[in-house]
Amino acid sequence: MNSNPNEKENHEQAVAAGLTSVTVIGLGMMGAALAEAFLKAGHRTTVWNRSAGKADALVAKGAIRAATAAEAVSASPLIVVCVLDYEAVDNILSPLAGLLAGRTLVNLTNGKPEQARKAAKWAAEQGANYLDGGIMAVPQMIAGPNALLLFSGSSEAFTTYQKELDVLGSGKYLGEDAGLAALYDLALLSAMYGMFGGFYHAVALVGSEKVEATAFTALVVPWLQAMMASLPLQAQAMDANVHTTDVSSLYINKIGFVNLIEASQEQGISTELVAPIQALVDRAVAEGYGADGLSRLAGLLMKPQLM
Amino acid sequence: MNSNPNEKENHEQAVAAGLTSVTVIGLGMMGAALAEAFLKAGHRTTVWNRSAGKADALVAKGAIRAATAAEAVSASPLIVVCVLDYEAVDNILSPLAGLLAGRTLVNLTNGKPEQARKAAKWAAEQGANYLDGGIMAVPQMIAGPNALLLFSGSSEAFTTYQKELDVLGSGKYLGEDAGLAALYDLALLSAMYGMFGGFYHAVALVGSEKVEATAFTALVVPWLQAMMASLPLQAQAMDANVHTTDVSSLYINKIGFVNLIEASQEQGISTELVAPIQALVDRAVAEGYGADGLSRLAGLLMKPQLM
Ligand SMILES: NC(=O)c1ccc[n+]([C@@H]2O[C@H](COP(=O)([O-])OP(=O)(O)OC[C@H]3O[C@@H](n4cnc5c(N)ncnc54)[C@H](OP(=O)(O)O)[C@@H]3O)[C@@H](O)[C@H]2O)c1
Ligand SMILES: NC(=O)c1ccc[n+]([C@@H]2O[C@H](COP(=O)([O-])OP(=O)(O)OC[C@H]3O[C@@H](n4cnc5c(N)ncnc54)[C@H](OP(=O)(O)O)[C@@H]3O)[C@@H](O)[C@H]2O)c1
Repeated sequence: MNSNPNEKENHEQAVAAGLTSVTVIGLGMMGAALAEAFLKAGHRTTVWNRSAGKADALVAKGAIRAATAAEAVSASPLIVVCVLDYEAVDNILSPLAGLLAGRTLVNLTNGKPEQARKAAKWAAEQGANYLDGGIMAVPQMIAGPNALLLFSGSSEAFTTYQKELDVLGSGKYLGEDAGLAALYDLALLSAMYGMFGGFYHAVALVGSEKVEATAFTALVVPWLQAMMASLPLQAQAMDANVHTTDVSSLYINKIGFVNLIEASQEQGISTELVAPIQALVDRAVAEGYGADGLSRLAGLLMKPQLM
Repeated sequence: MNSNPNEKENHEQAVAAGLTSVTVIGLGMMGAALAEAFLKAGHRTTVWNRSAGKADALVAKGAIRAATAAEAVSASPLIVVCVLDYEAVDNILSPLAGLLAGRTLVNLTNGKPEQARKAAKWAAEQGANYLDGGIMAVPQMIAGPNALLLFSGSSEAFTTYQKELDVLGSGKYLGEDAGLAALYDLALLSAMYGMFGGFYHAVALVGSEKVEATAFTALVVPWLQAMMASLPLQAQAMDANVHTTDVSSLYINKIGFVNLIEASQEQGISTELVAPIQALVDRAVAEGYGADGLSRLAGLLMKPQLM
């Protein structure tokens, strides 16, 4: 398995530098970026992917191709998994339970808090240290200054391998509850999807008058930057549960929404992404919060006992 | 009406400096900020509001109180209106049609393109120059470096009063079609509401595990900043209508959405703001776009003949 001269060289350099050997399982868009980052940092990097061909480019850059997932797990004390979902993780790792003892498993596959907690329990039963992680970056950002990785689960695993994981981006450890990284990850993703969804509506709306998306986006970006300044202020209002405003009332936003929805309809574009926000604003006004600011809205999404 | 010594002084200074007299009609949160900006810049500023009491603070700062809307319109060649909606504009100005000839009316009330076009036509019939505007700022940003004002309609009006309007923020003239400022304004608002909506969901999701909004927002802001970098790239993909991706496929986003929605349900929070984005992603995948990037989505909101 170690016949390529590049790999040998890489291996010898890594051993010489005292760098941890790392295994990356899953070489999709994200997994490949993770493996490449470890390689670039000089780690002996063993890779495996269900469709073997996806390893080729990495092997050409010095990665070690594992012929099987078992070989991949056996190759390193630190195993990073990044595949489609937890079911795929399960498919790959369940048959290899016996190989995990004493190793650290870092699962960077997107999932739910409950799935992360279950995986942590299972890994502990196999004698493995388990860290669950959320990658707050696109593949192109990995190993760059803006990549954030959220971790939760075994603090021992995080402490032991913090240096290695920092190769991928800045790591933030959220606590022993393995579910926390997934919770934060999904929450940050929802913020991103909201921003993207609003952007798609905006592009569609001006597009109905043949305004190009690129030209319009030059206005959107500074505008969203400016409006982002309100998020920390809104968060303060939420934590204090005081929603008085000298910025804009829910009532004036309700009126603006009528214009937004009607204009969208008049321009023939779908209101499916913005109508639910309108409904929330309308509900808040109907519940008597018309004089409050927008910060009032988050509470309306929570279960009653948390409001 | 001009009995306050402050007002007299202000008037004399403005006249001495050759500054245009300005009238501001509507002194809500936004209108008051506009009037204050004109005052600070030294303009003779006449103000009127349906509920007269809202003028008091401005009069104390040197504004001239008009006893009636007619008096307000008669006081200046440049009249800025910022009220609840176009119906309110209509209520105020229709009876005063005969006073508008030769004046410039700048309507900064939020509305729809069709309403702006109708107002422009009506104003032209009265012999007035009409500019429609969208204020891309909250009141606290007025006269500051990040306030953007969009204008459309009479280019003559814009050219004549650009200097005066620049007092409020940087002005961008979009063209003779009076409806354009409203179109861009509503589009930018939809981008903001999307970002806010995603943020509310995110806060509710982590809030379900008692994470404070302020602490979490410290992660949200840099994350959204980083993800904002993708907007110009997505816009390029939209304009080229080429949606291949090496970032993340709609299919992987579909899987992530299952986690986001299920986790939200498991945490007991409402999915009303994110479920519609999931539905759009699912529809795109069902239509065969699973291998494409997220930029594909905007087109699905447009009317078929524009896709
Ligand atoms: N791309 C991003 O921007 C991004 C950002 C943050 C987080 N993530 C997360 O990273 C993870 C991977 O995403 P990606 O973008 O790399 O997706 P991708 O390019 O679609 O790759 C999916 C990977 O999962 C593997 N896989 C799927 N089903 C499998 C199974 N049953 N058994 C074994 N392997 C299986 C695929 O193997 P084959 O090649 O054999 O199909 C491939 O390696 C996801 O959880 C995603 O949410 C991605
Ligand atoms: N606040 C913001 O952040 C913001 C940002 C950008 C754009 N805008 C736009 O600016 C405009 C005003 O917003 P705002 O925040 O200033 O709202 P606001 O504080 O609620 O003020 C509403 C204004 O409209 C007047 N008004 C309402 N109905 C009227 C009627 N039938 N006749 C005469 N006057 C009437 C009110 O007069 P009374 O005092 O007599 O009720 C008040 O002056 C809206 O179009 C809004 O979309 C606001």
